[in-house]
Amino acid sequence: MNKIEHIGIAVKSLKESNLLFEKLLGQPPYKEEEVKSEGVKTSFFKNGPNKIELLEATTANSAIAKFIEKKGEGIHHIAFDVIDIETEIKRLQKEGFVVLNEKPKKGADNKLVAFLHPKSTNGVLIELCQEIE
Amino acid sequence: MNKIEHIGIAVKSLKESNLLFEKLLGQPPYKEEEVKSEGVKTSFFKNGPNKIELLEATTANSAIAKFIEKKGEGIHHIAFDVIDIETEIKRLQKEGFVVLNEKPKKGADNKLVAFLHPKSTNGVLIELCQEIE
Repeated sequence: MNKIEHIGIAVKSLKESNLLFEKLLGQPPYKEEEVKSEGVKTSFFKNGPNKIELLEATTANSAIAKFIEKKGEGIHHIAFDVIDIETEIKRLQKEGFVVLNEKPKKGADNKLVAFLHPKSTNGVLIELCQEIE
Repeated sequence: MNKIEHIGIAVKSLKESNLLFEKLLGQPPYKEEEVKSEGVKTSFFKNGPNKIELLEATTANSAIAKFIEKKGEGIHHIAFDVIDIETEIKRLQKEGFVVLNEKPKKGADNKLVAFLHPKSTNGVLIELCQEIE
């Protein structure tokens, strides 16, 4: 857990929210990327050592569509940067956290990712992410 | 907006959540602090260039008590580090954001803070914070 890699924010319209976050952060997104396996379109903003990821659902059964239906737009997850995701998964499982992806999967922005179940983390959806070399 | 200064997480029990986040982040909180004016007890964890703030309500009409009542435990706000909070408030107002504290107030962890209304920021409660010299 080296730093907050990014904060993921669920939005209804990537196009509109890109403009909003450009005003907020003072710069446009540095990339947009679709992750078909997750049913999302994403955009990424740099903010010093951190990033903000906006997520728009592309399918009705995407996790982001369900999140917005239930809770409205807002912060969806915190992603922590890790050096070795497999070691970190094992460490956290031993500590009692519920890891949703025992085998890390390919996420957006060239990352291997795994999520912890919010029921084991005070209602916070936590993502571990390791840069793919 | 230099970086994510911290993520604020609303919790029911600071004592229990301190243990949980110590396991998650691999180190104990570096400080605990009560902010009586806000009706909260807080603890802070370092995470590289960022921090995690846990917030427990100390009064029934604290914003944190109301948040948990409505949404349950979870991520409450994102705080961005700024150099000059008054200039940043003016810039954001001009961009159309709704600033809840035109005059910054004293927050936890030696900071001047101001919040943006979530209705102008995709449902995300955003805090600006400037270190007090």
